Amino acid sequence: MPELRRDPLSEGWVIISTERGKRPSDYGRVREHRKPGPCVFCEGQEAAAPVEIWALRDGTPPGGPGWRVRVIPNKFAALRVEGNLDRRGEGQYDRMNGIGAHEVIIETPNHDETIMDMSVERVAEVMLAYRSRIEDLRKDDRFKYVQVFKNHGEVAGASQPHAHSQVIALPVTPRWVKEELISCRKHFEAKERCLFCDIINQELDLPKRIAYQNDQFVAFLPFASRFPFETMILPKQHESDFTRVDDAGLRSIADCLKTVLMALDDCLEDPPFNYVLHSASVRRPGRGYWQSIDYDYHWHLEIIPRLTKMAGFEWGTGFYINPTPPEEACAHLRRSVARVSGEKVSDETPASPFDI
Amino acid sequence: MPELRRDPLSEGWVIISTERGKRPSDYGRVREHRKPGPCVFCEGQEAAAPVEIWALRDGTPPGGPGWRVRVIPNKFAALRVEGNLDRRGEGQYDRMNGIGAHEVIIETPNHDETIMDMSVERVAEVMLAYRSRIEDLRKDDRFKYVQVFKNHGEVAGASQPHAHSQVIALPVTPRWVKEELISCRKHFEAKERCLFCDIINQELDLPKRIAYQNDQFVAFLPFASRFPFETMILPKQHESDFTRVDDAGLRSIADCLKTVLMALDDCLEDPPFNYVLHSASVRRPGRGYWQSIDYDYHWHLEIIPRLTKMAGFEWGTGFYINPTPPEEACAHLRRSVARVSGEKVSDETPASPFDI
Repeated sequence: MPELRRDPLSEGWVIISTERGKRPSDYGRVREHRKPGPCVFCEGQEAAAPVEIWALRDGTPPGGPGWRVRVIPNKFAALRVEGNLDRRGEGQYDRMNGIGAHEVIIETPNHDETIMDMSVERVAEVMLAYRSRIEDLRKDDRFKYVQVFKNHGEVAGASQPHAHSQVIALPVTPRWVKEELISCRKHFEAKERCLFCDIINQELDLPKRIAYQNDQFVAFLPFASRFPFETMILPKQHESDFTRVDDAGLRSIADCLKTVLMALDDCLEDPPFNYVLHSASVRRPGRGYWQSIDYDYHWHLEIIPRLTKMAGFEWGTGFYINPTPPEEACAHLRRSVARVSGEKVSDETPASPFDI
Repeated sequence: MPELRRDPLSEGWVIISTERGKRPSDYGRVREHRKPGPCVFCEGQEAAAPVEIWALRDGTPPGGPGWRVRVIPNKFAALRVEGNLDRRGEGQYDRMNGIGAHEVIIETPNHDETIMDMSVERVAEVMLAYRSRIEDLRKDDRFKYVQVFKNHGEVAGASQPHAHSQVIALPVTPRWVKEELISCRKHFEAKERCLFCDIINQELDLPKRIAYQNDQFVAFLPFASRFPFETMILPKQHESDFTRVDDAGLRSIADCLKTVLMALDDCLEDPPFNYVLHSASVRRPGRGYWQSIDYDYHWHLEIIPRLTKMAGFEWGTGFYINPTPPEEACAHLRRSVARVSGEKVSDETPASPFDI
C-alpha cells in the first residue's frame, strides 16, 4: 500500500510508493563524462578568473597559485552587488533591483578531485570557507539571507566539473526557508522545544532512517523524503546558526558529509546531487543587527541526489512522489557507509538490521 | 540590472535576469525522437490497456475501437483507489494510506497527433473529459482535491509519447494549491475582490505580457514568471470552479490552449512542457459537500515549458532564476501566435509593439 507522509517542516505531503520500491540500480545511473582540465578554477589559471575574494593560503600572494580553497565572484552572477534595492510597487506587483552577492567557492586546486577524495581536514577547510563567507556577507545591511549550496554533475545544474560550491546573498528571505522558520516558530510556541531537536530525538530512538552519525552530527533520511536517498545532516546539539560551529565542529561535519557523499557515490554510482545549507541567520526588518533564531531553529544541510524527474503533478501541486521509501534507501546507504569506511560487509546477508 | 519580482499568488520572489536576456534560440532545443506507434494508448490496442473508465464514443461499445477521447486507470498508479485512509500519527510525524485515483486521459486515438494538430472542437472534447472526470471524482468522500495535468516530452516526465493527460485525486489539499488559496483569501478579506481578477485587469490595461486572448479567455506570462515562457490561461470573467465552464466555454478555452501551445511549439521548437489545472474545488474538513471558494479564487491553467534546470539554489530556497523576462518572452510568443494563426508577419520588423 502506498503511503502519504507529511513533512513537519514544510507541512507538505509526499507519496511514498512502498510497493514499487525502486532499488538503487533501478535508477540506471551512467557515470557522466566530465570535461578534462585545466579549467578556469584550476591552480595556475587564476589570471583567467575574476579577482579573488577570499582564500586559504600559506603566505602566497592573492591571485596566484598556492591555495587550498579559493573564493571568487561568479562570472555569470544572477545578482549584482553594487547598487540600491529601490523597492517599488506596480499595481498588484512588487519589485526591487536584483542586488545581491553571488560567489563561487573553489573547493580544491585540483581539477579531478572532489570532497569524496579529500582528507577530512581539507573538507573542514571548505566548511571554514562557508562560515567565513556567511559571516562576511552578513555584514552587508542590504542582505537578509545567505544561501550556500552545491551542484554536482550536469543533471544537477553544475556547468563546471571542477568541484565548487556557491554562495548567494539575498535581500529577501526565500520562501522555503520562511516556511521552515514558521513551522519551527509554531512548534516552539506550542511546546517550548525546537522541532528539529524533537525530530532528531525521535530518529535516534528508532534508528531505521539513520545513515551515519559521529560524536557531534547525525545524518538521516527524512520520514517524508521528497526524493529517493535525500539525506539531512544536523548537529545533535541544538544550534540555530552555522557560523557558531567551532573548528572541531567543522571537522566533525566534514567527516559526516564526506562519509555520506562517499556512501551515496558507492550506492548510486556517482549520482548528480545538490546540497543546500539552511541556517537561521535572517535579518529581521527594522532591526539593525543579525537576529539568530536561537531557540526555535536548527541549522542543517540537505543533500538531494537527482534521480527522479519533476513532472506536471509535482509542478502543479508541490506534492512529491518518492519511489524508494527512506527506510529502504537507508538500508542500502548503511551498507555503503560500512563499505566506504572499511567495515567488513558480506554481500550475502543484509549488513544492517534495518534492511526491509 | 537584474530584478527581483514577487509573485502575489505564492508570495515567493523570482530573479529576472534582464541582462542575460536569453532568446528562444539560446535554449538550444533539439526535437525529441518519439517512439513510433502503435502503443497501448492507440485505437485498436484497447485489449492491452486497463479497463475503460470513460470515453467519448458514437455508439461503439466500451473497451473497443471507435472513440475520440478515452480514460483508463494509470497502470503505474501512484495511489490506490481501494481502501480507507487510516490516518495515524507517529511521534512528530503524520501518515495515512496512499488512497487516491490516478487516471490517464488519452487525448486522441492517433499515435502521432497532439492538441496542436487537432481541431478546436476536438480539443474541446479533451476539456470535456477533464470536466467529467473532476465532477465524477469529487463524488468520492475521501478525496479533497482533483489535479489534472499533462506531461509533454521525455524531459517533462512523459513516459509515453502518445498524447495524454493525467488526473490524480488526492485525500489532502496540495501545499502549492493551499498557498494560492491562502493568498486569495487574504486579498479578498482586505479588498473584497478576487486577486486573480485584479491581476487580469492590470494585465489587460497594459498588455505587455498578454500572448493571446479571445472572447472568454486570456493567456499571459506572469509578472514574476519562475520559468522562461511560463504562460497562464484564465477566464476573463470571475469563476472559481473549472467544472462550471459550459460547452461554449470549453470551446473557447480549447481555442486559447491550442493557439498558445502552437505558438510555443513555433517559438521554441517543440519544447517539453507541463501544464496543470488549478480549480478551487476543495473539500473542507468537517463538511459533507464540496465547497467552491466562489468569490476569492479563480481557476486557471499554468503552462510550464521545461527549458531550464533546477539546481541547488532553487532546491534550497524555492527562489527561481528566470533568464528571459516575461515581457521579452511575450514579444517572441506574440510573433509566433501571429504566425500560427495565419496573420502576415514580417521577419524584419518587430511584429508587436511590445518587442523590447
